[in-house]
Amino acid sequence: MLDVAYEREVEAALRSKDVAELSSLLADITPKEASRLMARMGLQQRALFYRTLPKEVAAETFDELDPAVQADLVSGLRVPGVAEVFEGMEPDDRAELLDELPASVASRMVANLSEGERELTGIVLGYPEDSIGRRMSPELIILRPTMRVASAIAEIHKHLDDAESIYTLPVVEEDRRLAGVVSLRDLLRADGRAEVSTLMQEPDLAVAHEAAEEAARRCADRKRLALPIVDTEDRLVGLLTVDDALRILEEADSEDQARMGGSEPLRRPYLATPVLEIVKSRVVWLLVLAIGATLTVQVLERFEDTLATMVVLSLFVPLLIGTGGNTGNQAATTVTRALALGDVRPGDVLKIVFREARVGILLGVLLGSLGFLIAGFVYGWDIGTVIGLTLVSICTVAATVGGVMPLIGKKLGIDPAVFANPFITTLVDATGLIIYFLIAKSVLGI
Amino acid sequence: MLDVAYEREVEAALRSKDVAELSSLLADITPKEASRLMARMGLQQRALFYRTLPKEVAAETFDELDPAVQADLVSGLRVPGVAEVFEGMEPDDRAELLDELPASVASRMVANLSEGERELTGIVLGYPEDSIGRRMSPELIILRPTMRVASAIAEIHKHLDDAESIYTLPVVEEDRRLAGVVSLRDLLRADGRAEVSTLMQEPDLAVAHEAAEEAARRCADRKRLALPIVDTEDRLVGLLTVDDALRILEEADSEDQARMGGSEPLRRPYLATPVLEIVKSRVVWLLVLAIGATLTVQVLERFEDTLATMVVLSLFVPLLIGTGGNTGNQAATTVTRALALGDVRPGDVLKIVFREARVGILLGVLLGSLGFLIAGFVYGWDIGTVIGLTLVSICTVAATVGGVMPLIGKKLGIDPAVFANPFITTLVDATGLIIYFLIAKSVLGI
Repeated sequence: MLDVAYEREVEAALRSKDVAELSSLLADITPKEASRLMARMGLQQRALFYRTLPKEVAAETFDELDPAVQADLVSGLRVPGVAEVFEGMEPDDRAELLDELPASVASRMVANLSEGERELTGIVLGYPEDSIGRRMSPELIILRPTMRVASAIAEIHKHLDDAESIYTLPVVEEDRRLAGVVSLRDLLRADGRAEVSTLMQEPDLAVAHEAAEEAARRCADRKRLALPIVDTEDRLVGLLTVDDALRILEEADSEDQARMGGSEPLRRPYLATPVLEIVKSRVVWLLVLAIGATLTVQVLERFEDTLATMVVLSLFVPLLIGTGGNTGNQAATTVTRALALGDVRPGDVLKIVFREARVGILLGVLLGSLGFLIAGFVYGWDIGTVIGLTLVSICTVAATVGGVMPLIGKKLGIDPAVFANPFITTLVDATGLIIYFLIAKSVLGI
Repeated sequence: MLDVAYEREVEAALRSKDVAELSSLLADITPKEASRLMARMGLQQRALFYRTLPKEVAAETFDELDPAVQADLVSGLRVPGVAEVFEGMEPDDRAELLDELPASVASRMVANLSEGERELTGIVLGYPEDSIGRRMSPELIILRPTMRVASAIAEIHKHLDDAESIYTLPVVEEDRRLAGVVSLRDLLRADGRAEVSTLMQEPDLAVAHEAAEEAARRCADRKRLALPIVDTEDRLVGLLTVDDALRILEEADSEDQARMGGSEPLRRPYLATPVLEIVKSRVVWLLVLAIGATLTVQVLERFEDTLATMVVLSLFVPLLIGTGGNTGNQAATTVTRALALGDVRPGDVLKIVFREARVGILLGVLLGSLGFLIAGFVYGWDIGTVIGLTLVSICTVAATVGGVMPLIGKKLGIDPAVFANPFITTLVDATGLIIYFLIAKSVLGI
C-alpha cells in the first residue's frame, strides 16, 4: 500500500525535477503502485516519472495504464523500450491503444510488430469500434468434441503460458463452428477416457459485431468466466474474459453517469486530465442546454404582462420548474438504468407510460396538497390553488416524459443517458411554465 | 433466447389464470429464461408463474432471482419446496435473502437448516450489512505453504463439487493466517514435487468488515478471479469470487445513478416493482428538494421590489439557475465517479477546488460572453452586462461547490451521490439568485 507521506515525497521530487532523489524513491515500487501514482499526475510529470522507473517495472506499469494515458506516453514523448512493450501487449489492449494514437504513429508501431502479433492485432482491428470483436482475445485454446478428456487436459498444459483463459474452454467442430464450452473444473472431475462432447455445455455467447457493453453485461449476468465470441456464421473468433468484461462495464457506467450529469466522459483519470480537456468535456453540453433554456425566456416573455400584474407569481418559478425537473430526472434515471440492465425494452413503451403517469399523478397529488396548504396559508388561497394544481400537472407530465425519453433515445440509436436527463430539464422547464401561467390566468381571472 | 410472441402468450395465460395453458408453455423453459420473465411481472403473476414451473426448473430459477423477489415468494405466498431450495443456496446468497425477510420468517427458515449450512450462514451473518463479510463465500479449499504441488492438486480434486472457487486458492499457515494465493494455472504448470510456497503470490485481499463495494472494486481493478477475505487478525475467513464482485458493483452503480437522479434505488427490477414502491422511492427526495427550493422563494421575495421595477429580470431566472445547476451537476458527477473509482481521495480537496474553480471560470467566460452578446443585442447592453457577469460568477461558484460537495459527503460518511447532485441545484439556485440580483442592482443602479 502507498502511504501519503511517500506520495508527497515523490510529488516534491517531480516538482523539483530531482531525478536522483526520484530514482531512489522509485527503486522498490511495484507496477500497480506506479500506475496508481501516474493516475494522479499531469502530462509532464507523468513522462518524467515513467522515464525514471526501473526498466523491469516500466513495461508492466505501461500495461496497467488507461489507453489514453498510454497514448500520451507513446506519442508525445520519446519513451525508451516502447516497441518491446507494444510487442508484449495483449492484442485487444494493443487495439485500444492504437485507437488513441495519431494515425502516423499507429501505423509505424504496427509495422514494427512481429508477424504473428501483427496478424492477431489485425483480427481485432477488423471489427468496428465499440464492438465486442475489438475487445476480445483472439488467442485461444481450442478443443474438439471428439477429443478424450486426457488429451484435452494435455492440450491445455501445452498452452498454460500463453492462452488468456484456461478455465473456460470453447469446443469447435472441424469448420470452426462453436459446439459448446467446457470448464476446466468439469474436465478435471471427469474420467480421462471420456469424450469432451459429454461434458460440453450450451454456451452463452456473443457475436463479434455486437456492442461491447451488451456482450460484457451478458458475461456478468450469466456469471461466466469467459464468453466465446463468434462471427455471423457461428464460427469461433475469440473469447471475452470476465476481467475484460468488468473493464468494459466500468467504462460504460462511467459514460452513463457522465452523460446523465450532462458532460462527456473523461478518457483519463480525473487528476491526470488537463483542465482544458475538462472544459471541453462540459462546454458543448452546457451551451446546448443554455440554448435550449432560451425557450424559457421566450415563454416568460409571452406572459410578461401577467407577470407584471402579479409579481408574486414570479416567486414560485424556480420552485415549480425545479420540482418538475427533479420528477423528470427521477423517472429518466430509473428507466435508463432498467434499459442498461435489460429489465425493460423499447417495446415496453406503453407499460412505462402507464406506470410513470400513475407515479407522476400520485407524486403530484402529494406535493400539490402540501403546496396548496403552504402557499395558500402564506399568500392567499387563490395563489395556493394555482400552485397546487400546477404541481399536480407538472409532476404528471414530467414523470411521463422522463420515463419515455430514454426509450425514444434507444429507438433512435442515441445513448439513452444522453438523450434523456440533460434534455428533460429544458423540455419540462418550458412546458411547466406554460402550464403554470395558463392555470394562473384561468384561476386568477387575469 | 426468448421471443416476444412467446412472452405475449405467457402473459395472456397469466392474465386469464389459465394454468393448463401456462404449464404447457412452461414445459421446456430454462431457469434463466424463467427468471428473466419473472423480472417483468407483478407480484400476483409472479407467484402463479413460479408455482406452475416444472419442479426441477423452479429451484434453479429461485437462485437466479433478486433477493427482494425471492423474499416476495417466500414470505407472501406458500410456495412448495422452499425449504429444500433454501438448504441448497450458497451461504452468501442465503444471507442476502434473510436480510429481505421479516424476522419471524427468517428465523423459522434458519431453524430448519441442516447444522452445517446453519453454521456457514452464521459466519456470514456475523458481519455488518454492506460489509464484504456478508457477501463472501465461507466454503473454501485451503492449501498450506509446505504442501507439495501434487498433493495440493489432489486436495483440489477432492473439492471439485462443493468449493465455490478452484481457480484461485488461498494458502494459510497453521494458525489460519493468510500466507498467499496460488492459481490453479501455476499449480498445473509446476513440478508435482515442488512446494506450494514457491508458487505463492502476494495476495490482493480485503478485510471482512470493509465496505463490500470497495472490496469488489479492488477485485475488479486488480483483475482477480477471487479475493481472499481475512479478519482483523489476518486470518482467512472467506473468498470473494469475481461473479459476486460483479453483482456488488452493478448494485453499487445502480444505487449511485438512482441517487444522482434524486431517488432511492429500487430493490426489484423496474417492471416487477409495484407503483406504490416507486412512489415511495421518490417522494421523500422530492419533498426534501421542494422544501429546499422554498429558499429560492424567500430570496426572490427579498428582491420583489427590484422584480416589480424591472420585470424583464424575471425572464432570465430559469436560464440562469438552470445553467448554474448544470455546471454544478457536471462537476459533482465527475468527482463522485472519480471517488468511486479511487482516482481521487477526500484529502485531494484543495487540488479539486483549484481545478474546478479554473474550469468554472473558463466555462463562465465562454457562456458569459455569449450571454452578454445575445441578451445585450435583444434587451439592451446594460441587461447584457448583468447576464454576462452573472453567468461568469454562477459558473465559477457552481463548479467549485459541485466539485467539493461529494468530498464533504464522503468525509461525513454520507454517500457522495446522495450528498452532491440533488442538493447542488437547491444550493446553487438560491446562491445564484442572490448573485444575480446583487449584480443587477449595482449595474442598473436600482
